[in-house]
Amino acid sequence: MNELQQRIIAEGRVLPGDIIKVDGFMNHLVDIKLQRALAKDFAEHFKGREITKVMTVEASGIPLATITADELGVPLLFAKKAKSDNIEGGLVCSEIHSYTYNKKVTLMVSAEWIGPEDKILIVDDFMANGEAMRGLVDIITQVGAELVGVAIAIEKGYQGGGDRLRAKGVDVYSLAIVEHAEPGNIVFR
Amino acid sequence: MNELQQRIIAEGRVLPGDIIKVDGFMNHLVDIKLQRALAKDFAEHFKGREITKVMTVEASGIPLATITADELGVPLLFAKKAKSDNIEGGLVCSEIHSYTYNKKVTLMVSAEWIGPEDKILIVDDFMANGEAMRGLVDIITQVGAELVGVAIAIEKGYQGGGDRLRAKGVDVYSLAIVEHAEPGNIVFR
Repeated sequence: MNELQQRIIAEGRVLPGDIIKVDGFMNHLVDIKLQRALAKDFAEHFKGREITKVMTVEASGIPLATITADELGVPLLFAKKAKSDNIEGGLVCSEIHSYTYNKKVTLMVSAEWIGPEDKILIVDDFMANGEAMRGLVDIITQVGAELVGVAIAIEKGYQGGGDRLRAKGVDVYSLAIVEHAEPGNIVFR
Repeated sequence: MNELQQRIIAEGRVLPGDIIKVDGFMNHLVDIKLQRALAKDFAEHFKGREITKVMTVEASGIPLATITADELGVPLLFAKKAKSDNIEGGLVCSEIHSYTYNKKVTLMVSAEWIGPEDKILIVDDFMANGEAMRGLVDIITQVGAELVGVAIAIEKGYQGGGDRLRAKGVDVYSLAIVEHAEPGNIVFR
């Protein structure tokens, strides 16, 4: 069992609604030393792949994506979820379904900051149905960039998002794939 | 002129609506090496203050806050902006006015992750009217934690948020205070 899996067992909680609560070290109060350990693991898995940018979507995946970009020595690009005044023209968009908020959400990246010359590593803290990842992959495809892979901290294996991407040939690297979760009993693949 | 100010002059743009666009290195595509330089400057300014946590609000300030937390060797706590299923009970809240979206927004932190023993450094990429900062300071006050200071990359000095906090005795440390901004002419304090 790796460090992340140990932390999930020790500190995580399973809540009604299929929620694995890890907000004391991953996505509310964030243990930066743990993020560094996860980022080093990602960097080792994807080494030699000439990654030019790390990409994520706001908001909870940003700390891990930031530390991963720091570890790789490349910039971070984060997709935004709604039109803000601070983004003008030239947007690349993809519409996804957010299961967290049960509504359609549009992911957006400025076309200025991603192009066919890029080799992108997607990083996120969680993957469940994989809708956010599908949107990011769609944006990468639209601009003709290369998708190096997808690096995830916690994947809900039983929701199938990761396996759907793997079936399409994407290198999905998850550090904790949860196959079964109920209070007091979390089982990893 | 420091490194951030040089980058703002070289790469920033002033858009209608009083927007200083720095999304090629600060808040969309993020230059992590620059964030590290800014974080080192923050750490030097606040050294010896026994900071226990860095605090910010989602989303665009998270990369800088993450690198600052990494630099200081402490966890990051980020306030959330809307009720998500992933936060349960025990919330500390503060209502602010978002000028970006022109509506009321509630900032929330779980009471589990902040308390009277904490010495908090607030970090954000931008401060304009200072509403987000006012909300974070309110949350810190409600739980009886100590506010060590506020570290900002870019402050819009002419909007007064920073000076209002300084007038209350808060140590507001901003690396680029913009006093005047129009296309082709950005003046720092």
